[in-house]
Amino acid sequence: MRQASGSITIETSGKGLVEWTDRAASWVAEQGMAEGLLTIFCRHTSASLLIQENAAPEVRDDLAAYFERIAPEDRNAYDHDDEGPDDMPAHIRTALTDTHLSIPLFGGQLMLGTWQGIYLFEHRRRPHRRTVALHLIGE
Amino acid sequence: MRQASGSITIETSGKGLVEWTDRAASWVAEQGMAEGLLTIFCRHTSASLLIQENAAPEVRDDLAAYFERIAPEDRNAYDHDDEGPDDMPAHIRTALTDTHLSIPLFGGQLMLGTWQGIYLFEHRRRPHRRTVALHLIGE
Amino acid sequence: MRQASGSITIETSGKGLVEWTDRAASWVAEQGMAEGLLTIFCRHTSASLLIQENAAPEVRDDLAAYFERIAPEDRNAYDHDDEGPDDMPAHIRTALTDTHLSIPLFGGQLMLGTWQGIYLFEHRRRPHRRTVALHLIGE
Repeated sequence: MRQASGSITIETSGKGLVEWTDRAASWVAEQGMAEGLLTIFCRHTSASLLIQENAAPEVRDDLAAYFERIAPEDRNAYDHDDEGPDDMPAHIRTALTDTHLSIPLFGGQLMLGTWQGIYLFEHRRRPHRRTVALHLIGE
Repeated sequence: MRQASGSITIETSGKGLVEWTDRAASWVAEQGMAEGLLTIFCRHTSASLLIQENAAPEVRDDLAAYFERIAPEDRNAYDHDDEGPDDMPAHIRTALTDTHLSIPLFGGQLMLGTWQGIYLFEHRRRPHRRTVALHLIGE
Repeated sequence: MRQASGSITIETSGKGLVEWTDRAASWVAEQGMAEGLLTIFCRHTSASLLIQENAAPEVRDDLAAYFERIAPEDRNAYDHDDEGPDDMPAHIRTALTDTHLSIPLFGGQLMLGTWQGIYLFEHRRRPHRRTVALHLIGE
């Protein structure tokens, strides 16, 4: 049994979902393990992680629109807006989705379903560089 | 230290929460470990996982009703409805709950609290067969 | 490779977020590992876990206020109120946030971002003693 640690930087172009399944799978493949557990951890409080459908692109737009409705930019709704009107909604959307994900590895493959992709969900208006820590344990 | 991998198929009868705590605990018991970490991963984007109270059945109904209200079936609200009006709400409800859960094992027991059960949350109207991948590491 | 298990009790004073990053980090430091995976698991269905910004205190108040709005105390909205009007909203808020978190450890440090803290989110009105199970695997 052994473990591997690393990190991946994801460039975002403002609000929305960025798929990075291939980069996660490549990093896992480089570690040369057949069975184990991958954990990915987003080191930010205004971007988050999500497993979502990777077939229809409308799903991503509908999801983004949904979170705009459920946690809207609204200066009257929040005390905290140090970094602008998208600051507090970003923290809320992060709380409602995931900061970390763990995915089993078996037969050298991540156990994602046929339609599942790994996404970083950017919640700020401006482009950001986001760092995700990766940890793999297995053999 | 060693690890075990497996999967469980859960039959659903349409929308709602299905408890499968006993099946998870049985699988763990079969692996014969005393201490470790169980990770369960739902391989679908229109069903999800949840730890919830397993005492009062009204909790499950109230939870299901809540998600109907917060992410309603509404053809006008979403672009994506390839598989019907329950398609996009299913993805949203999955995003708001969990695709994976990790539960420590100690003294041969999952560290669930007294009132905690493991649920699969089906978000589609029709019955489905759902696959959950399991991974246990420990000794 | 080895593992360590433990638990931490967190006293809450009613609804709101309680930061306990330092206690988690201290427990991890005591285990003397450099690289691994920490998993924390909240053994309750009316309190949850959250990674959130630990700089501006307004963030915590805004988050708490948001969940009051999105999952309000409203006797007419739920069938289940065995333990009072804060009972069912507590389960819903738990479902929307996290029951467990996994955080990679590298170089002897939890891979939290600069502004990330670990919080217990109490959803009941009255003070409670909450138990969080901890599991660390690595070396």
